[in-house]
Formats: sequence, structure tokens, C-alpha cells
Amino acid sequence: MEIRLATGKLLTVHDGESVFHALKRQGIYLASSCGGKGTCGKCRIRIDAGKYRTDSRGKLSPDEMKAGVALACQTFPDSDLSVDIPKESMLIVGDVIEIARSKDLLELFRTLDGNITPLVQWIPLDIPPPTIENNTGDLERLAGAAADKGLKNAIFSHDFVLSLASSLRNAEWKINLAFTKGPEAILISPLKEKTRYGIAVDIGTTTIVLYLVNLLDGGILDTGSTYNSQIRFGDDVITRIVYATESGGLKELRETVAGDINDLLASLVERHRIAAEDIESAVISGNTTMAHIFWGINPEYIREEPYTPALNAFPLWKAETAGISINPQAPLYTVPCVASYIGGDIASGVLVSTMHRKSGLSLFIDIGTNGEIVLGNKEWLVTAACSAGPCFEGSGIKHGMRATEGAVESVKIDPSTFEPSFGVIGGGNPVGICGSGMIDALTEMFMTGVIDQKGRFVKERAPQRIREGFEGPEYLFYSDDRRDIVLTEIDIENIIRAKAAIYAGISLLLKKMGFTPQDLESVSIAGGFGNYLNIEKAVIIGMLPDIPREKYRFLGNTSVAGAYLCLLSENMRREAEEIARKMTNIELSVSRRFMDEYMSALFLPHTDISLFPTAEKIIAKR
Amino acid sequence: MEIRLATGKLLTVHDGESVFHALKRQGIYLASSCGGKGTCGKCRIRIDAGKYRTDSRGKLSPDEMKAGVALACQTFPDSDLSVDIPKESMLIVGDVIEIARSKDLLELFRTLDGNITPLVQWIPLDIPPPTIENNTGDLERLAGAAADKGLKNAIFSHDFVLSLASSLRNAEWKINLAFTKGPEAILISPLKEKTRYGIAVDIGTTTIVLYLVNLLDGGILDTGSTYNSQIRFGDDVITRIVYATESGGLKELRETVAGDINDLLASLVERHRIAAEDIESAVISGNTTMAHIFWGINPEYIREEPYTPALNAFPLWKAETAGISINPQAPLYTVPCVASYIGGDIASGVLVSTMHRKSGLSLFIDIGTNGEIVLGNKEWLVTAACSAGPCFEGSGIKHGMRATEGAVESVKIDPSTFEPSFGVIGGGNPVGICGSGMIDALTEMFMTGVIDQKGRFVKERAPQRIREGFEGPEYLFYSDDRRDIVLTEIDIENIIRAKAAIYAGISLLLKKMGFTPQDLESVSIAGGFGNYLNIEKAVIIGMLPDIPREKYRFLGNTSVAGAYLCLLSENMRREAEEIARKMTNIELSVSRRFMDEYMSALFLPHTDISLFPTAEKIIAKR
Repeated sequence: MEIRLATGKLLTVHDGESVFHALKRQGIYLASSCGGKGTCGKCRIRIDAGKYRTDSRGKLSPDEMKAGVALACQTFPDSDLSVDIPKESMLIVGDVIEIARSKDLLELFRTLDGNITPLVQWIPLDIPPPTIENNTGDLERLAGAAADKGLKNAIFSHDFVLSLASSLRNAEWKINLAFTKGPEAILISPLKEKTRYGIAVDIGTTTIVLYLVNLLDGGILDTGSTYNSQIRFGDDVITRIVYATESGGLKELRETVAGDINDLLASLVERHRIAAEDIESAVISGNTTMAHIFWGINPEYIREEPYTPALNAFPLWKAETAGISINPQAPLYTVPCVASYIGGDIASGVLVSTMHRKSGLSLFIDIGTNGEIVLGNKEWLVTAACSAGPCFEGSGIKHGMRATEGAVESVKIDPSTFEPSFGVIGGGNPVGICGSGMIDALTEMFMTGVIDQKGRFVKERAPQRIREGFEGPEYLFYSDDRRDIVLTEIDIENIIRAKAAIYAGISLLLKKMGFTPQDLESVSIAGGFGNYLNIEKAVIIGMLPDIPREKYRFLGNTSVAGAYLCLLSENMRREAEEIARKMTNIELSVSRRFMDEYMSALFLPHTDISLFPTAEKIIAKR
Repeated sequence: MEIRLATGKLLTVHDGESVFHALKRQGIYLASSCGGKGTCGKCRIRIDAGKYRTDSRGKLSPDEMKAGVALACQTFPDSDLSVDIPKESMLIVGDVIEIARSKDLLELFRTLDGNITPLVQWIPLDIPPPTIENNTGDLERLAGAAADKGLKNAIFSHDFVLSLASSLRNAEWKINLAFTKGPEAILISPLKEKTRYGIAVDIGTTTIVLYLVNLLDGGILDTGSTYNSQIRFGDDVITRIVYATESGGLKELRETVAGDINDLLASLVERHRIAAEDIESAVISGNTTMAHIFWGINPEYIREEPYTPALNAFPLWKAETAGISINPQAPLYTVPCVASYIGGDIASGVLVSTMHRKSGLSLFIDIGTNGEIVLGNKEWLVTAACSAGPCFEGSGIKHGMRATEGAVESVKIDPSTFEPSFGVIGGGNPVGICGSGMIDALTEMFMTGVIDQKGRFVKERAPQRIREGFEGPEYLFYSDDRRDIVLTEIDIENIIRAKAAIYAGISLLLKKMGFTPQDLESVSIAGGFGNYLNIEKAVIIGMLPDIPREKYRFLGNTSVAGAYLCLLSENMRREAEEIARKMTNIELSVSRRFMDEYMSALFLPHTDISLFPTAEKIIAKR
């Protein structure tokens, strides 16, 4: 059977295959935060002709159903279908925002190190061909020539030796020998100028971001991103761990994430017309659970007291072992983790923030699916994970989405009319709300009194916008003939919980180390909020401490940025390792003081209003 | 369908399976030097009842066919069969001779080193279990405890880490950590006393011999041996190399030899009731082609000028990579090779001969499927391969066989009656002739004038014994109601070619280095001749130089003996490596002088009779 898209493109669909899967298989990625379970409602399509079965119509309104709207993940064709994919259902892979930011990263690298020293080194060797007088083995010839150039005691794997004789003869004994830490020889290529490629990968619980990097000049050639399809086994790390301990679960999770990365790779490799074999090294950065699952290592003990990972510092294993479709011998560096709930993504973040090089007190906050905090300076670093949840990445929020094209990233509510206006990434009509939009919206609602200090709607303030929806009270942001965009009271509750967890973590770490927010010299914020985070507003709702705004910097996705730095240089890898070793983890989950801090922060801005003079003034004025 | 043996034992047989294969599958090994092609005629069985198809009756006489004799490899049952296996068709696995000799080896080891230092070392570690205050990763805990005991910078493979968390917890954090060169951690086991096992394997072109060794005391617990089933792809290394370069050929050859070793292992492991997992290390010793094929490395360039192997010194790879059914992480040491036609079996031989430790001039001769010679002392070693062919291992000789039970190992011919008498290994009726029997027979025939100096029968000398056979003239050694044992003129031609190649090699090496046979202080002989080699007779036919007999020593299978020494000690491995590095290989195949020497040696004893005063006297007397 076939699917005909409104663009005229024809796609195949296998028996028993969902439209979602058929599209994905053929390179068309739809948005999804539930991973195809039919619960997030983000993969809406319109069926214009043809017969199909559907497993669920959850999240679809009666009007939508009437108009032929269906969830692609729940739609199984019984005949050829004509399908229209609305823009808001498309997952934008390799989005513009990431590319724009990637230019700054090369600048950052130049200020931090500047000397490119990839995981793989190359040495040119001119090996004397064998003669009847000197017919020792190929490996002995190679090892001898390498030793003459200073590469002694190299390790040669069985895989390397398998192709040795033919590689040497094909290259007529004039070769480049590539080797990695060990030193271990990994591949041979004929002597000729060519670009060398590497990839930096952020494996988030919710999203995966990949940079394709030119290792000769450090340039980021392209980027790709996608949801982590493991979402279909659960939204957060705990449910993933539980799934991993079920029979076959770990293997399935592992193959899922490798599949996502390989899908991203396939499109990048095709777009740039490079051979996957020419990608010679990779760095992955992710939280501890993601790193365990990526390598197929049982994460079971991460969630059991005393929360022990199988390992924090991952040895340099190979792409082949990970099932990643680049050169099978390519070394795959894993940014080191710190503890069960403080992963390589946080070591990456500290590396990018440079707080570990500064004398003054700095704070680093990564707001992703979880929410991690690091406090310290060049002498010491303490860290904690506070379960903030994935709402700022769009998960668990009715119209939440990642910071890609079509996302509402900034919101303003007119204090007299209570009518909203907003900025949309890429311009055009809004498709959903991303993290920065949520914080803006919450703040504006709070400042204008549309919600109270507990986050509940004050209906009489804006009766034309606040209505009773499917899931309770909601505020209507936007409406066109295709869809409404709302923020529900449940959404607001989720956002307040997230901001409370973050503030409680910050507050506790500061107190534990004997500091106050005023002692902070800089605060770096990372996460998938979008192009920017309105610090002012995050302070007003009590997510961030009320300190001078110029101390704040928003760094975007520091996990992939750290992976990028580690891909380029040995110094950066050593720094990441030192950071990971140096960090002291504080387990908040067993801390009663954390619970107290959290409960106090469930208000807007906080139970103790004196901590937030800016908000205090606004409330007073209101 | 079933096969009922005369012993009453019932065996299954699959559809389309030969009787030979069905027996092998169920642990009953028949003799075979053609590997199941129906050409060697060694797997004769008698079918007493039942229907069967046969692909070939080659080598069977009309009388045998009438009596129900069939070749097991060519027999495919169509119904249940009753089968009688004559003693001479049984391959004796784990024969008594090897065991008897193995006791001397421990003595040899004690004189050479005595300090057992296996490939795998064990350290007991008492690792502090994780607590909420110290919950760093399992690997970091293990690495820390190991470093405290002096094991620093260890390598941890992906496979090792996969099972780490559960191994540590199962052992309740009190473990033995096993590690090998690298240092690389390979396995964890609970702290308890247990025997540690290793295997030493000789991979010959024709036969495979395996020793099961107790690594705690160096004792040889058991031995096993079998034909190398690769024989079905060709008798010698050249045909194996040719086969390896055909599509899928290398894989097939590799799986064949691994299968043979695993079959031997299975029976040893069962007999001693040990877990295959408890075999923690292995050493293999074989010629360069066998080592390449064992590791799945293309041997193509070995046979192309300038005869370059892919490698001589094999890295320490793992049992899993080789497909050998012991502990998958077990390191597998390959005794280093010297050149394309001088393999690890020869380095083993020199090690066992101890010639590399002596000041005087020594000669080492290994007469196996090929024939290799080493000349030298503790300062220098030169070596050469002379294509002697596999006849002394029983291959290519009508009634040739390995030196196992039933083999004629010594022969005497009465100079007046020309009637033969002989010694049979294990007593009883003879089944075939092994290498030492062939040399004896040739000498006796020569001394009594039954053959002339060219090896042709002088029929009138013993008309009652010399007859016209299926393949030309033959001498009848033995006859009973079941079979005749003969030596044909073609057999004799083969034996003379083999002895000529060996003598030519010895002669050339001595001349090249400026010595005469009289300069030799000791000569060590290795090979599959059997329990002993009658040096006197080998001198008379001109295979060995005519020097005082007390300079000769017969060492048996030095390839497996060298593997055994290397299994036990790091010093022995270092010595084997030094031997391999030190040896200078001389390519006889491109030497015109070798051809001259060879042609001169195709006589009994030699064209230049003055070189062989002992034989000269005998001829004069005759």
C-alpha cells in the first residue's frame, strides 16, 4: 500500500505498520513526545482519502475527527491513503537555532584551548615493501615503521589485523595510520588529503542532538536533532530503568537510542555526501542512565539505594560495540558521569560554563528532563539533582513542544485587556509553547493577576480567555481554524512544580556550603528553553534567585556543546574528567531539608516573599 | 534412524548424515586422513544388518565388499544399521603415549623455570560496598581497590563491564579479580579455592593435540588428539591457503579447526567434570598458515613471493574471538612465528630443545607435515623449511597411520628369509605403519637388498613377499583374515623424497654457516614418529647425518610441549619470543643449491656414499 502526501510524494507502507512508522522509515519525522503511544496528540495528520483503522482517537476533538484528523501513530492503512501533514506536526531535524549557536562554539573552543587534538591521531608511514631478503610479517613491518615515528608498544586488535594485508597492499605501503588511546591502531588509509569527521552527540532523556564536525578546523558542518524514541517506554529515567530490568528491555532500549542516532547520521551523511566510514570518532554526553543504556549496561542499581551506577568514567570503547553506524573502529568517548543522577551532560555543562576555571562563586543550572545544579569555583564543585521533570522540553504540557520552528518562545499579556501577544520561533503561526514561552506565560499571568500565587486561574480577570476545557480550566492563547493553543491549570501546576524543584535545589546547595544568593558572581543556565530565557521573568516567578540580572548567562544545550569540545581536544577531555572527579554529589532525594525548601517554593514566587524583592514590588503595585 | 554398534551401544543418525559424521557427533572418532572424502580408506566399518546408500567403494577390495565392509564416510543409512567398528578404524583420542611423555614435561619445566606465572593473574580484593555517603560507580570502586593492590591503569573491556554490577553483588564485594597483559581485567569470581585450568594446543596441518593443564601445579591432567579435519580441503598448507582464498573458504577452514579443538575440549571437560568457563587461558602453537587460519586472517600472501605472512607475533587476543569454547575472556597466546614457513611450532621446538641456551652448535629437526630445521646456539639461530611432506604422519602412505595404538613402530627383516617381524604400539595385531615403522622398514629393506639404492624392489630377493598390487609393486608385511598391510613402491618413493628433503636442508644450512655435520654437538628431533625413532636406521638411509649416535635426542611433539611451557610461564613466553626474533629464515624454495642437495639425497643413503660410512660398510658387506 502507498501513502500519497499533499506534496505529491509517494511513500510505501508495510502491512501492520502505522503511518507514523512508515513516514519515519522513509525519513519524514513527525513530532511526538509519547513515542507513539497515542497519548501526546502531537502527530496529528489529516487523511483526505482512503481507508484505515485506528487504535485510539485520544486527544482529538469531535470537530477534528469530523475533519479527518487522525494520530499518525494510531493510524493503520487498509488501502492507499492521501495524507496531509500540518506544519505543526513536523519534527524539525537540524533546526536553525542549533546551527546559529554552533558558530559561537568554535569561538568558545578557541578561547579555552584552540589546539585541535582529536581522539584519533594520524601518522603518515612509508613502509618498505617486503622482499625475499626481508619478508617479515606485515604487522611487524607496520609496527616497525610506526615505532620509528615514535609510536611504540601499539595495541593491534583482531579486527585491525584482519584487514591489514589488503589495506597495506591497496595503499602500496604508503599509508596514514590512525590510532587512538592505548595507543591502539584503528585503521589504515591511503596517503591523501581528506576531511576528517567526528560527531558530538547529546543523548537526552527526551531529545537527541547530533553535531557533525570537521576535525581539521573544528567547524560544525551540520546538526540534527530528534526526540529520543525511548520515550515510548517511559518519559523519565526511572521508568526507563524499570523497563531495562525487564526481560529484553535493556536490549530494546539500547537499540532504540542507537537507531535514533543512526537515523540522524544517515540523513547528515547523505546530505553532505560523505562515507559513514570516514567519521572517525565520536563523543557522547548524556545523563548516567542514558549512558548506561547506550552501552547496554544494566542501570538497575542506579535507582536502588545507595544509588550506585555501574560506572561513571566509561572506557574508550568502539563505535562497533555501541552499534553506531560510523567507522566500526572509531573510538567513542563518553563524557564522564559523576553519580547516578549527575551525568556526563552536567560535566559537559560545567566545562562549557568555565566555572571550574574561575575564582568567584558560580552556579550552573541545567534544566532538561531532570534539573541539575552545580555550585562552586576552581577549588571545589558540589552538585545535586532536583527532579524538575521534563515540562520545559514540552513533555507533560498539553501544547508543549521543543524550541523549534513554530514554538511560542515569548509571551506578553496586556495588563488592562488581558489579551496575549507572543513571539514565535521562525515567525508564522504558533504551533505550541516551548520552555521559555511557558516561563514567560506564567510570569505574565502572575503579574497581571490572571493566576494567583498558587497558580490557580482568577477567572473573573479574563473571562474571555479563561475557559473550562477538556482537562479543566485553561487559558486560550491562540486560535485559528485549525487548532487552539491553551495553557491548562494542570500545565501551570507542572510548571510551578518544576520551578520549585529548581529553586529548592539552588537554595539548599547555597545554604549547605554557607552562602547566600548574593555571594554568586555568575549563574549559567543550560537547557532546551529555546533561543533565549527571559531571566527577569524566571526571577519573578521564583525559579531563579533575585540577584542582579547581569550575573546571568543563558548557554543553551551545554551537553552537546561539551561533547563538541571533548571531540576536538585532549585538554578538554582531561578537563571534563577533572570536573567529574572533583564534583561532590549531594543526594537530595534522601534530604528532609530539600523537601522543606521545595514545599516553600511551590508558591509564586515563594512562601518567603522577602527573598524576591522584584516580585514583591510587582505584587504591591498590582 | 539408529546405529547399533557391536558393543550394544545405540547411536542416532540424522537424515542425509554419513555414518562417519554420526559417530563423530556422538564422540566416536574413526581414523581418517582424507577428512571424509572416501579416498584414504581408513574408516572401514562392517555393516552386519540394515540398508544404506554409498557414494564410493574406492579402496575396498571385492572380498571386503562381499563381507559387508564399507567406508563410514561414504555410508548413508536408509534404515537402522548394525555396525561393527574394527579396532584399526578407531582413532585413539588421548592416547597413552602422549600422557606418558607429558610427565617428563613438568620435569623439563622445572629445570627451565619452575616458577608458574600463567597468562592470567589473580588478586583477591575486598571492596567496600557502596553507601549513601560513598556511592561512586562499581567500576571506580573495583579500580580503586585494584590500584591499592598495585594494579594501576587497568583496561576494562565492554564485555567485562557488562557483567560487573551483578558479579560484584553476587560475590558480596569480596572477589578474585583475574587480569591479563595490558593489564586488562578479564573476570571476577567469588573468593574461594578452586583449580585453575589452561590448555596447550598444537595445531598441526595433519593432527591436533591438546593438553589440559592444572595451572596451580603445572600438572598435565589429560591429553586429547585428533586429525585436523581441514584435511578434507587439502593435505598440505598450500592447498589450504588456496582454499582459504576462495569465497567463504577461510571462514570454513577456521570453523573446522575451531570445531576440532572444541570437540576435543568437550570430551576432556566432560571426563574431568569441569566447567569450560573455568579454563582461563590457552596457548596455541602451529605453523604460520595454521595460526593465520585459526585467527581467520587471510594467509594469501604466505604463498606468494616474497612469502610474507600478515603477522608473525600474534597479539594476545581472546578465546571468544577465536571461537574456542573456554572462558570467552580467556587470553589466547599464540607462540610466535618466524616466517611464512617457519611457525610457532618451530619456536616451540627450539624452546623445548634448549639449543638457544647452549654454547655448542645444535641442530633441531621437526618432521611433521612439512619438515623444518634450525641450526645454531645461544648466539644465533638460522632456520629453513624443506618440503618433506606429511608421509611420516601417515598421510599419502597406503597403510600409513599416526603413532597410536596398533601402529607398526619398529620393523626387522630377516636377512636370510626376508621375512619381516615387527613391534606394534600397544601390542596386538598391527593396523598400519607409523613414521618410525616406515624408516625402520625402509632401512631393513635397504640393508637386506629388498630394495635398491633408488628404492625400487628387487623382486627376486623376496618373491614370497613382493607382489604386484593394486597400485604397483608392494611388499606384504602382514596379513590376517581381515586385511593385508603393505608398503608400496610409491610409498617408498614418498619416504625417500621426504628423507632427501630433510637431509638436503640440514646439509645446506650447515654449509651456509660454514660447518660440517661433525661440528654438531647435539641434534634434537621432533615429530609424530611415535614412541621412539631409531636413529641408527635414519642415519643408514641418509635422512640424518652420520655422526655419533649419542648426540641425538628424540623429543616427540615439541609443538604442544612448547605450548605447555608457554602456558605455564611468562619467562617461557619471553624466551619463545626471543627465539622467534633471533631466528634468521633462509628461503630454500628459491635456492638452486637446495635443489642440488635434494637431488643428491634421492639415493639410499646418498649420491656421495662417503658421507655415510655406516651405510657404506653395510653395502660392502651385503
